[in-house]
Amino acid sequence: MKKLLNDVDDLLRQSLDGFGAAHGDLVEVHHEPTFVTRKVAQRAGQVALISGGGSGHEPLHAGFVGSGMLAAACPGEVFTSPTPDQMLAAAQAVDSGAGVLFIVKNYAGDVMNFEMAAEMYTGASATVLVNDDVAVEDSSFTTGRRGVAGTVIVEKIVGAAAVRGADLAACRKLGERVNGATRSMGLALTSCTVPAAGTPTFTLAENEIEMGVGIHGEPGRRRIALAPAATLAKDMMDAILNETPAAKGGPVLLLVNGFGGTPLMELYLMYAQAARLCAEHGLKVVRSHVGNVTTSLEMQGCSFTVTALDDDMIGLWDAPVHTAALRWGC
Amino acid sequence: MKKLLNDVDDLLRQSLDGFGAAHGDLVEVHHEPTFVTRKVAQRAGQVALISGGGSGHEPLHAGFVGSGMLAAACPGEVFTSPTPDQMLAAAQAVDSGAGVLFIVKNYAGDVMNFEMAAEMYTGASATVLVNDDVAVEDSSFTTGRRGVAGTVIVEKIVGAAAVRGADLAACRKLGERVNGATRSMGLALTSCTVPAAGTPTFTLAENEIEMGVGIHGEPGRRRIALAPAATLAKDMMDAILNETPAAKGGPVLLLVNGFGGTPLMELYLMYAQAARLCAEHGLKVVRSHVGNVTTSLEMQGCSFTVTALDDDMIGLWDAPVHTAALRWGC
Repeated sequence: MKKLLNDVDDLLRQSLDGFGAAHGDLVEVHHEPTFVTRKVAQRAGQVALISGGGSGHEPLHAGFVGSGMLAAACPGEVFTSPTPDQMLAAAQAVDSGAGVLFIVKNYAGDVMNFEMAAEMYTGASATVLVNDDVAVEDSSFTTGRRGVAGTVIVEKIVGAAAVRGADLAACRKLGERVNGATRSMGLALTSCTVPAAGTPTFTLAENEIEMGVGIHGEPGRRRIALAPAATLAKDMMDAILNETPAAKGGPVLLLVNGFGGTPLMELYLMYAQAARLCAEHGLKVVRSHVGNVTTSLEMQGCSFTVTALDDDMIGLWDAPVHTAALRWGC
Repeated sequence: MKKLLNDVDDLLRQSLDGFGAAHGDLVEVHHEPTFVTRKVAQRAGQVALISGGGSGHEPLHAGFVGSGMLAAACPGEVFTSPTPDQMLAAAQAVDSGAGVLFIVKNYAGDVMNFEMAAEMYTGASATVLVNDDVAVEDSSFTTGRRGVAGTVIVEKIVGAAAVRGADLAACRKLGERVNGATRSMGLALTSCTVPAAGTPTFTLAENEIEMGVGIHGEPGRRRIALAPAATLAKDMMDAILNETPAAKGGPVLLLVNGFGGTPLMELYLMYAQAARLCAEHGLKVVRSHVGNVTTSLEMQGCSFTVTALDDDMIGLWDAPVHTAALRWGC
């Protein structure tokens, strides 16, 4: 295993310390329990968004802590759910009187631990479960669909609504609406290697890819031979379009997400395919994002995410955001 | 070779078309010859910064076209210099009356072709040569030191000065000053694969890394065994500190750049090492950036860049920028 680290057991802490040092104006990193908060607390009476999950998906979630998005993030060890004490401590630290909204990717461990935290928390809380991955129903770590890159879109849009004063119930409802409007599908060219394991999570033949891969390297729909980008893109987009609630002629957000090891040149080439396929299907891409927002360590591959938008959601997507990984308007 | 592409010969064009489509509000992509300009022309009388070089280093350079940075970028094929007709067409397209400043990484092909373009161009032009890589003097494609990630810092700071009205001579002088204040060093854990070649550029043993690697996979100082991050970081930072003009107690910008295939977790862990080493050396890190800004396709590894700052340069670094890959303040 070739990785830039010192002690495997201390990877998360040292990485978070680097994150905190590099973004000292934006975030504060807390240990024991581990969570990341905004440096400047959000205003009193604003719903506080908290997300979290296993590490290895950076910039998810700590990279989205900041003004207009998350109030706190709870990182677990690599591909391992954080524990309820982390979420509880984060909630206690950031609740400014309007309650906390937990944004949870649909994996059994995350769901269970966030549920426990919500039970333990004495303030007001609500939860939005993200399950945008159309690849498979049920998987290694999931019952139902998995939550993947669409999580970032939920966090951005609901974060902006919280800034505008939406209360806890409205934030939850909006989060569920954005999740319901969002569908994703990914593919892997290579596996990632979990540092504590030391060997690749799965093995692909030289000419083989995993279509519908999960963000922890979980199996997707099938292994197929590597094909031209146009063919692979059509496979992914067809899966999304089969399930999207987006109406013909309707505005959508198109996100092309890299899994961590994919050259940006290839992501943009895949964006070209994805945008063309949306247009052919009668969808109007009005907002786009291309980059590594929900990664799987150094995995090569990418995912497409399509969110059916409305004017309200477009305005919230465009609203100012200032985090380590997403920044505009401020 | 596992890559997301259709026809290898059409990779650059299709990728640029995706880039143009994803950032249609920001940039315009031109073909025959190939160059990328701002969507909204900069104001008359502002010096126009033009950079370029082989592709495969994305977001360099097209990702830095936009307000506060480059007026145009000229991408060549992967790891291949663009041709003078590209730079000439870009200069003719973006010169708004104050001349063009070519920002050129020190590689023989780039230097020669930008020189030819400058000779062919009938308007006013000047050139800043970037050579921040301390790893080696002379290399596969270079006489003298190579230009690497420090290029982004030159482009940002000089771009801001151009917005403020600096004339061509002042922009060139500032560019030379920023380059003179900037030192970089990188390492590779893995090779990249140039699409047209189809096989890895170089081969490393399972436990071996290339210390001082170039951004095209050129040889560095030596091959060494993989070591803890702290050891590798010290090796890189010592090489930089041996050559930096930064004074003890002086403010510096610290950039930790990923080569395209490195997990963000590891980049932040490396940032922690780099920041500590700067502090131990008496340097004050007042600005930081962590991410993939100058890549080598899917190469795993990273580089450190340290720029000795002054108040003027800090203000220009902080000035608003709106490009695909770097955005703040607007």
